[in-house]
Amino acid sequence: MSQNWNELRELLDKAAAYQAALALFGWDAETQAPPEGAALTARVVGVMAEEYYALMTGPRVRALAKAAAGEVTESRDRAILRRLSRELDRLEKLPQKEYGAYQQLLAQSPSIWKKAKEQNDFSAFAPTLEKVVATERRFASLRAKEGQAPYDVVLDDYEEGFTMAQLDPFFAEARERIVPLLRRRAEKGIVPPKKYPCPADRQRAFCKWLAGYVGFDFSRGVIGETEHPFTTNLHNRDVRIAIHYYEEDALSAIFSTIHETGHAIYEQQIADDRTLTPIGSGTSMGMHESQSRFFENNLGRSRAFWSAIYEKLQKMLPETFGGVPLDEFMSAVNAVQPSLIRTEADELTYTLHILIRYELEKALFAGELAVADLPAAWNAKYREVLGVEPANDAEGVLQDTHWASGLWGYFPSYAIGSAVAAQLDAYLRRTEDLDGMLRSGSLSALRAFLRDHIHRFGGEKTTGELLLETTGEGFEPRYYFEYLEHKYGV
Amino acid sequence: MSQNWNELRELLDKAAAYQAALALFGWDAETQAPPEGAALTARVVGVMAEEYYALMTGPRVRALAKAAAGEVTESRDRAILRRLSRELDRLEKLPQKEYGAYQQLLAQSPSIWKKAKEQNDFSAFAPTLEKVVATERRFASLRAKEGQAPYDVVLDDYEEGFTMAQLDPFFAEARERIVPLLRRRAEKGIVPPKKYPCPADRQRAFCKWLAGYVGFDFSRGVIGETEHPFTTNLHNRDVRIAIHYYEEDALSAIFSTIHETGHAIYEQQIADDRTLTPIGSGTSMGMHESQSRFFENNLGRSRAFWSAIYEKLQKMLPETFGGVPLDEFMSAVNAVQPSLIRTEADELTYTLHILIRYELEKALFAGELAVADLPAAWNAKYREVLGVEPANDAEGVLQDTHWASGLWGYFPSYAIGSAVAAQLDAYLRRTEDLDGMLRSGSLSALRAFLRDHIHRFGGEKTTGELLLETTGEGFEPRYYFEYLEHKYGV
Repeated sequence: MSQNWNELRELLDKAAAYQAALALFGWDAETQAPPEGAALTARVVGVMAEEYYALMTGPRVRALAKAAAGEVTESRDRAILRRLSRELDRLEKLPQKEYGAYQQLLAQSPSIWKKAKEQNDFSAFAPTLEKVVATERRFASLRAKEGQAPYDVVLDDYEEGFTMAQLDPFFAEARERIVPLLRRRAEKGIVPPKKYPCPADRQRAFCKWLAGYVGFDFSRGVIGETEHPFTTNLHNRDVRIAIHYYEEDALSAIFSTIHETGHAIYEQQIADDRTLTPIGSGTSMGMHESQSRFFENNLGRSRAFWSAIYEKLQKMLPETFGGVPLDEFMSAVNAVQPSLIRTEADELTYTLHILIRYELEKALFAGELAVADLPAAWNAKYREVLGVEPANDAEGVLQDTHWASGLWGYFPSYAIGSAVAAQLDAYLRRTEDLDGMLRSGSLSALRAFLRDHIHRFGGEKTTGELLLETTGEGFEPRYYFEYLEHKYGV
Repeated sequence: MSQNWNELRELLDKAAAYQAALALFGWDAETQAPPEGAALTARVVGVMAEEYYALMTGPRVRALAKAAAGEVTESRDRAILRRLSRELDRLEKLPQKEYGAYQQLLAQSPSIWKKAKEQNDFSAFAPTLEKVVATERRFASLRAKEGQAPYDVVLDDYEEGFTMAQLDPFFAEARERIVPLLRRRAEKGIVPPKKYPCPADRQRAFCKWLAGYVGFDFSRGVIGETEHPFTTNLHNRDVRIAIHYYEEDALSAIFSTIHETGHAIYEQQIADDRTLTPIGSGTSMGMHESQSRFFENNLGRSRAFWSAIYEKLQKMLPETFGGVPLDEFMSAVNAVQPSLIRTEADELTYTLHILIRYELEKALFAGELAVADLPAAWNAKYREVLGVEPANDAEGVLQDTHWASGLWGYFPSYAIGSAVAAQLDAYLRRTEDLDGMLRSGSLSALRAFLRDHIHRFGGEKTTGELLLETTGEGFEPRYYFEYLEHKYGV
């Protein structure tokens, strides 16, 4: 290989080390760090982020990338340069000090959000949220190309190539096709979903088994606990999921576990020669959510999936599920009811929760909505779209960690992911005996398929490329609406 | 303040951030990181260590420190410069690439040691240990001043000013005075210490309460689990202890908890204007061990300490201690028996375990002992000094993590710490009603004394200075031998 390329790879190894350190600090903050330590640790995190920034925007990286561009030939290496260039385009527009200060703010804001949520006090979080929104808008404006809207800038961060021009009609169709489904079901009468209380220790043990069954490799990962379930990764041999066990209902942790394991399998199956490089993680948040939601919903809410392991569940949680027939369980995990909490929402209403957030983010970015008016706007949207209204902000606008964590433009990924999952599900059902695989009690052939066609590439190919190469079609949301209408039509 | 000083402080903030990141990676490796991730994470850790090194040995830090030396007047700031200069003297002698490579080795070697210990296979660890010893010797030789022995270089790292010239007579006296005490007790017949089996969950709950009682501030720290108990700190508001709960005997975790809490209180009580600076941690490992061992032994094995909380112990662990009278408990926690495992050793024989390691480290550093011959030398020393012999290397030469972690010259700190603890204990008993404090069930006045006289200074003053200012005397090991003879003489 060329001298330029080798020197660049050394610098990128450093950059990857900073990213891995930031991932560890993020994991730690959400799973165990002591509350009084947050402010000092934020200084430490700020330094790591600034050093990453200084390295990437320094004199060498861009110059070496340009010099190497004409020299590398492998598709993997060309993809590394392409991704790197995207990241440099992003960073070079941001002033170093502001970037570092923002990373410090983001290191503290989740703990401020968490406290505000616990105390159901939006006003305690509002000043922080205002700073976050203002910074996100400012950074997006600095990065915007001629005529590009700031919100399109952050959408592109999480799903390359997706814009409001594409998402507006997608969400319009979602509203047009899902709301009537919901209304027709409501006319027949909605039974509130049953809850299945269970001690946390028992849930912990079953969820650990379940994660392993779905495919989590414990030699390359750990499971922790947190307020809001998530997955993170230092590299492909250290992938971590965090779960919240609610004693009042075991279904929450069970489906969180399947969801987060879907994310984790993606990261654990990325090829060794891609990890700790600019293409070392899943290609986009939409593709990531497609994997988690495919496991959680398309597989995890199917009778074929549970027919193989329902006895195990009954055996491990006998007081909770011992007397529950599989039929009742399947009804419970597929129950539909308009609700307040996104992470607890059923498969049918879920995308409507995303639609609400998408519209609010757009309005905040366009300067059409002030942070002070956000709670009222939130509640109005829930009333309008889902016909329910939060009794307080803790179960309303304060429910999600994303805005506190700087994840603006991220929410649409969940809806994109649901659509991609449905597209993969349709393809696999056309070409393979998916239900047969599930009933056999082994998901290894399925994981191998996903590894070979999607996971191993990391960020080498875009979502659109992966879909085209795997299914023969680009992004096609019609599979998603057809899936919902088929499953939930009455 | 001067421009030089301000610029230096900014660079030192960065250096402190790298150290905090390394501390978090260290904590993570020992408490939860997945086994297959170690090698890749070692690369990340290697980068952090190299960046720290590059920053400290770069063109600015030494120059700014020199320029600021004539300008700063506060004793705190002068101490920062003094400590910084000590660290620069250390680093500047080490070649950057070798330093980074060694940090990578140290990030992996504990997991290699751990596996070797689990499989009782010294040969699986020997090649790594050889590399570690060779590097430690080489680095110490590079750093040695004219005529200075390499082992004196590393001794000075953990306890400034201490050398073999001082420690040889100290350990000789330890052998002369402790071995006869032990022999006289053996002549009267030794009763093997009783074990108190207890489920891990129960121990976890009691030890959490106990840590809080001794003074652990949970808003500024967390308790985790590990193979070999330890304490670490990111800064004074994030201090972490890790405990091992042995189901076959609750006493192990109980006394580990008191010991590690002693370390943790030291770090949690360091002043805010010292944390995350070169004087941001305890002044030496000897002083650190004096705090942990003072709580564990001088206080924690006293009847006054337990008289206040024994009912609590019986209430929280009723199956284990409900039927055990306080008299029996006090005998059990003060039982003396020559044994194989340092961390489980009683107070009287403990320093003999250290003496053995001190002599072996000296021999390895002097090139008089090869790693291949270490197990046999270990076993011979145990036979000679303690009259016991390991049945295998897992309970012999493989028992401690220190050598795998690069902590050469560290072991003597435990003995120095025991001696300092006895000196503090004697002083406090002369000037305060220490037993009365303990019986009152509140240690807050004691913690305040330690904070004001020792803890808050961090690394501003040396062990000798702190002892002199607190007790009116420099390091005086006679208190230690008198304490042991008084307590264990028969």
